[in-house]
Amino acid sequence: MNYYENPKKNDFISLTSRPTIQAKDLQQIITNIYSEIELRGDLAIKDFTKKYDGFSLESFIVGKSIIDEAYAQIDITLKNAILKAYNNIEVFHKAQAAENLKVEIEDGIELSQKSVGIERVGIYIPGGTAPLLSTILMLAIPARIAGCKQIVLCSPPTFDGGIHPSILATAKICGIKEIYSIGGAQAIAALSVGTETIPKVMKVFGPGNQYVTAAKEYALNYGVAMDLPAGPSELLVFADKTAIPAFVAADLLSQAEHGIDSQVILVCVEKAIAKQVEKELQNQVQDLPRKEIAKACLINSRSILFKTIDDAFEFINEYAPEHLIIASENAEEYVDKIVNAGSVFLGNYCPESAGDYASGTNHTLPTSGWAKSFSGVNLDAFTKKITFQSISKKGLKSLAKTITSIAREEQLEAHARAIDIRFKTE
Amino acid sequence: MNYYENPKKNDFISLTSRPTIQAKDLQQIITNIYSEIELRGDLAIKDFTKKYDGFSLESFIVGKSIIDEAYAQIDITLKNAILKAYNNIEVFHKAQAAENLKVEIEDGIELSQKSVGIERVGIYIPGGTAPLLSTILMLAIPARIAGCKQIVLCSPPTFDGGIHPSILATAKICGIKEIYSIGGAQAIAALSVGTETIPKVMKVFGPGNQYVTAAKEYALNYGVAMDLPAGPSELLVFADKTAIPAFVAADLLSQAEHGIDSQVILVCVEKAIAKQVEKELQNQVQDLPRKEIAKACLINSRSILFKTIDDAFEFINEYAPEHLIIASENAEEYVDKIVNAGSVFLGNYCPESAGDYASGTNHTLPTSGWAKSFSGVNLDAFTKKITFQSISKKGLKSLAKTITSIAREEQLEAHARAIDIRFKTE
Repeated sequence: MNYYENPKKNDFISLTSRPTIQAKDLQQIITNIYSEIELRGDLAIKDFTKKYDGFSLESFIVGKSIIDEAYAQIDITLKNAILKAYNNIEVFHKAQAAENLKVEIEDGIELSQKSVGIERVGIYIPGGTAPLLSTILMLAIPARIAGCKQIVLCSPPTFDGGIHPSILATAKICGIKEIYSIGGAQAIAALSVGTETIPKVMKVFGPGNQYVTAAKEYALNYGVAMDLPAGPSELLVFADKTAIPAFVAADLLSQAEHGIDSQVILVCVEKAIAKQVEKELQNQVQDLPRKEIAKACLINSRSILFKTIDDAFEFINEYAPEHLIIASENAEEYVDKIVNAGSVFLGNYCPESAGDYASGTNHTLPTSGWAKSFSGVNLDAFTKKITFQSISKKGLKSLAKTITSIAREEQLEAHARAIDIRFKTE
Repeated sequence: MNYYENPKKNDFISLTSRPTIQAKDLQQIITNIYSEIELRGDLAIKDFTKKYDGFSLESFIVGKSIIDEAYAQIDITLKNAILKAYNNIEVFHKAQAAENLKVEIEDGIELSQKSVGIERVGIYIPGGTAPLLSTILMLAIPARIAGCKQIVLCSPPTFDGGIHPSILATAKICGIKEIYSIGGAQAIAALSVGTETIPKVMKVFGPGNQYVTAAKEYALNYGVAMDLPAGPSELLVFADKTAIPAFVAADLLSQAEHGIDSQVILVCVEKAIAKQVEKELQNQVQDLPRKEIAKACLINSRSILFKTIDDAFEFINEYAPEHLIIASENAEEYVDKIVNAGSVFLGNYCPESAGDYASGTNHTLPTSGWAKSFSGVNLDAFTKKITFQSISKKGLKSLAKTITSIAREEQLEAHARAIDIRFKTE
């Protein structure tokens, strides 16, 4: 890790910076995928699948029998793990349900607010060597709690042209019936445009590479919302003198193994801790299966020593980490200092892995500093709130002068007359 | 209004369509404004103000004395109207506050969720002939309740190079102290980039023309979020046989006077009501100050008769109106049929004007069908929710197998080892 001592506020800009590598011609590729799918529907999807995934699929619909078979063959230990994680995620996300609000402003003026599930949502699960089944739990469970009527899952075809069985089995556990083996930007475009086979959804969710991310942003042009602007995953560990260096190093490595563009930052107020963590990192990284990735990631990562705890948290809030571990026996003491973070892990026995998989919090979180303005995915992300007002003649009379005064100041006479006409004959 | 009877589902696509006029070279203009402001800061803002607003300003900072003077001179009737609206908006938005959540998943695993106000927000108020002071109330009040630490307001210079006094007075009532006389896309760009004078905010709010809208979307590239993808304002009135045609017509006109691209739709299940509303429209429009705008808007608007109430609501939900008036004596009976709408007005004495100004609901709402996936601006829009987890050694032990099973299935060994290392010596 690159080591910094007591950086000045001016250095925060570079120390909080994120990698910004953008593929060449990204926008042009995305625009082309969208227009081809708009023009040629399913046929275009098949062409892109051949081009980008290398499979000539007759159909990208994953049939019920294939899903059922994957479920039947899932390893029992893994199945039990999924069920326990499912339960915890469900409990926490159910607790997030906003009660429908009703407020009587005065006699005859009643306002209310109601949460309604977004009708059709799309979930994207990336392919690659490993099945990211945990992301299905994180997206499908709140979607079901929110009452989304149609939940569609897309994931790229892998080795044999199909989707990894663990993904299919997890999807079945989550009650998802509509699954398509389509990947990349073409999956997002298909969900946003709609084709003969793929339904046009109202919001797309899920992680992915920069093509997927760019496709999600482009969906705006088709009236389709997205979960979060996405970037590489990040972890910042704040370690005080009661931290356990071996644990801190293990947590940093669990982030570093994600990819060489992962962001790993250690913030300390004790030099000795920073040094011990560094030593542990060098030891532990050696026999990791993904050690090459982790090592490359560590080369770009930062270990920063601050003079005071307040300086440290000023930096942390400016960085706005996706994941923030407070490695301390007294973690609760720091909670009120946290303003910008996606998800926070408190204590020496609270690794990021716990929240990635099983404790119940969501792992789809704002990266690249977006924690300054975005929440992670939660129940709200699958709902919209509609406001209602019910006003009686008496209630409107009480508001009449207020409305007409402001309307006329804004030179919107018809707005004022919509009030006047209701009391004309009096 | 264009009249349609019992349209087929195939016709919904054209009947729910919105106007899509885009200024030529829009993207290029926006990109240029951003890069100039990034490069030359305040000087670039001054150049754009000269070019687009026609004023050579020495400073675009609106001083305290000017704000105080505007406040001192505000008409007392208008001031009382603003104060009453303020109170109602405050009551309803305070009631929206989410309680901080705490859930004990099991002994030693405690999850929580905390709402935190977005630290710095920018509010944009358009210029033009009329001061849109109501929008200040709708944005500044929830920002203050949310606990946003810095609230910055931008509005274009008008007649004498200053901001309309009613805007300044309303801003003072809302406790806003930081005001800049900058308009259009350059205001949004300045707030997103940050200059010597203008702070970089974390989220921008407020209505505007297509330049402002495009600039808000472009802010994403600078890590700045926006309230809503915006389009022309819309009203759909559903009128049953208990509706009062003169009131319905007045409400439709209050929307039609906004602009010729406003969307005005009447949905009926009784032919007689549709005809009477049309007659009332022709009468009432004649002596409106903005009758030319309203008439032009009506030419593009739609009156649609459905056979059944269920057909009508299938259409309404597909259209997903920004404002939905249920013009009926029995409005409550229809509430459960509403799935997609921004804000709903229930009853014959509940005009859109009430919510535009005074009842307490927010008037910054999703247009162009975005009500399918977006809420209107509410307290949530000014906050983000951070999740926390506090796990003891015992709690982690209980989760250990769940975490390591899923981690290893995902081929993320370091994720599993972050658990194992914590129980190594046992």
